[in-house]
Amino acid sequence: MLEKTTRINALYDFYQDLLTPKQKNYMEMYYREDFSLGEIAEAVNVSRQAIFDNIKRTEQMLEEYEDKLKLYDKFLKRQALMKELEEKIPAQNTEIAQLMKKLIELE
Amino acid sequence: MLEKTTRINALYDFYQDLLTPKQKNYMEMYYREDFSLGEIAEAVNVSRQAIFDNIKRTEQMLEEYEDKLKLYDKFLKRQALMKELEEKIPAQNTEIAQLMKKLIELE
Repeated sequence: MLEKTTRINALYDFYQDLLTPKQKNYMEMYYREDFSLGEIAEAVNVSRQAIFDNIKRTEQMLEEYEDKLKLYDKFLKRQALMKELEEKIPAQNTEIAQLMKKLIELE
Repeated sequence: MLEKTTRINALYDFYQDLLTPKQKNYMEMYYREDFSLGEIAEAVNVSRQAIFDNIKRTEQMLEEYEDKLKLYDKFLKRQALMKELEEKIPAQNTEIAQLMKKLIELE
């Protein structure tokens, strides 16, 4: 369950700009601000079931985007390679270290 | 014009999986196989105007995806940084060179 939450949060980071404002609103409340479905329903005056369906559908969409674009998967692989690279680069080489830092900040 | 074609081809590389089969088909014929609008119209038995509209709309969608996800923009920046990095890494360091190669292949 925690693993699923971590994954949905990560996918949301990558694909949130492809969602509608309503989807983003519910996802933010549920995953970022830790509201319960009932609390969201009350806050936006919509049935708890409608909130549940919307969030489930959004989670599916995030997985579909990931199937197609694999941004999170590539991100994880890139991070692992960058970490290996950093370990092999001589600490005193500041030019290389700065370029590595820029690469990581691009994510 | 050539610049636009290069850009659309690049955006298509990144976002083609988000398009419909029909959109992909027209884009492939027009941008990859260099069919004219008239030739595509004849091949799929649809009006030239409909092909034109579909391709224009697809180009807009590709730009919208790029506005939101910036995959091509980040790719160009990452490539430039990787090139700089490669120039600064001692040629004899094969471990680092191999990691760099893996990073580039992730794109």
